[in-house]
Amino acid sequence: MQKKPLILVTNDDGITAPGLRALILVMNQLGEVVVVAPDSPQSGMGHAITINSTLQCSKIKIDEGPQKEYSCSGTPADCVKLGINELLYRKPDLCVSGINHGSNSSINVIYSGTMSAAMEAGIEGIPAIGFSLLDFRWDADFEPVMAFVKKIAQQALENLIPRGVVLNVNFPVSKEQEIKGIKICRQANAHWVEKFDKRTNPQGKEYYWLTGDFINEDKGEDTDEWALKNGYISIVPTQFDLTAHKSIQQLNTWNF
Amino acid sequence: MQKKPLILVTNDDGITAPGLRALILVMNQLGEVVVVAPDSPQSGMGHAITINSTLQCSKIKIDEGPQKEYSCSGTPADCVKLGINELLYRKPDLCVSGINHGSNSSINVIYSGTMSAAMEAGIEGIPAIGFSLLDFRWDADFEPVMAFVKKIAQQALENLIPRGVVLNVNFPVSKEQEIKGIKICRQANAHWVEKFDKRTNPQGKEYYWLTGDFINEDKGEDTDEWALKNGYISIVPTQFDLTAHKSIQQLNTWNF
Repeated sequence: MQKKPLILVTNDDGITAPGLRALILVMNQLGEVVVVAPDSPQSGMGHAITINSTLQCSKIKIDEGPQKEYSCSGTPADCVKLGINELLYRKPDLCVSGINHGSNSSINVIYSGTMSAAMEAGIEGIPAIGFSLLDFRWDADFEPVMAFVKKIAQQALENLIPRGVVLNVNFPVSKEQEIKGIKICRQANAHWVEKFDKRTNPQGKEYYWLTGDFINEDKGEDTDEWALKNGYISIVPTQFDLTAHKSIQQLNTWNF
Repeated sequence: MQKKPLILVTNDDGITAPGLRALILVMNQLGEVVVVAPDSPQSGMGHAITINSTLQCSKIKIDEGPQKEYSCSGTPADCVKLGINELLYRKPDLCVSGINHGSNSSINVIYSGTMSAAMEAGIEGIPAIGFSLLDFRWDADFEPVMAFVKKIAQQALENLIPRGVVLNVNFPVSKEQEIKGIKICRQANAHWVEKFDKRTNPQGKEYYWLTGDFINEDKGEDTDEWALKNGYISIVPTQFDLTAHKSIQQLNTWNF
């Protein structure tokens, strides 16, 4: 690539999140960085977009560095739409989202604001990667994974991500030298079993907190869950064509 | 099926939406109906879930009929989680979502609260269908499609939807006798090109409305868009394993 790549950076934990700050530091080494990120945490927003209310967006300066930054009132997918179609002077060469505080492996990809931002860029034809660290704490240590973030982004810029595919990258919690390497994986077939914590408010009205247990019954050694449990970084190529092509024939036998 | 099927009904337009009322009428003919639906419109919510705030849920009676109804403060996916894990006395035999006021064909499946509710049920191992009519008006006429809704739900109860698959059903706007039939389709490869309508509020601050044009460059006659344009009902088998299996080999050639 002759000219400096233009990189759109976003996340779902909000523009002040340390994971985003780490991602900006790495991307500043690779290209010209524009940050468009939510002004407040948006975890669990899935692929929500704002259609029945308005969006606010302001230029902002949080850290030193050459990056341009915008803080936006919307969801992660809104930020990407706004960045690509309104704020950037040209189509970006890469969109990166994260580094998320917490896992987006397996079925979590469905609920993930981090991955929905990357998916949105992918839908708009832009190579995109979502990065997540398996540590949901605000003071999670992103230092051990920054060299890997750089390497994966460099490879994406050099090799081009296949059209219609977005990378879902998850990092185990390990020291840099303890990480065993990178595995290209499939999404493990796992799910959450919800438990609702039912409480009563001071006015006597019942309410619930959503909690749950993550259940992985997928024993495959080619899954993201296996890789992460065994000290590897997982990369799942993820697509937004949701068609279950193999089921079309079976459904054609139904008697409509 | 010996016993009467237990059917969980939800939507994303909110518990008072005429499309939901039409769906309840049909489902009352097929089984025991429990409605758990959002207390306000949730269009464009994608697969959002409520993790950083609480959920309220109240028993409610809106229309005559044998159905039990609950109004819930959360997203469509929250409603399904709450229904399955807290409100229903056993696992439902079917979950239906809709009938949405507006299309959820093609890439709209990604942004759709209607389909995210159905997907959530699918993830929890429950056969699930999302229904949408290509008319976003509140007074859209659902009468012409009700017989088809019944037939599709009956077939799903009889034949069982393949595990890991959820049906995305879209109806064209036509009189019942004009509908040419049902096509099993793949999701058309289409996307939205956003236009942001930039305005200034009375305090002089800029804000945006998200608008856009739907662009379908997919000329295939096996797509949902083709079926709907040609007077057919489209059914896309939709999956929540997002792995782009075909890209795994290619990514293994990258130089990490």
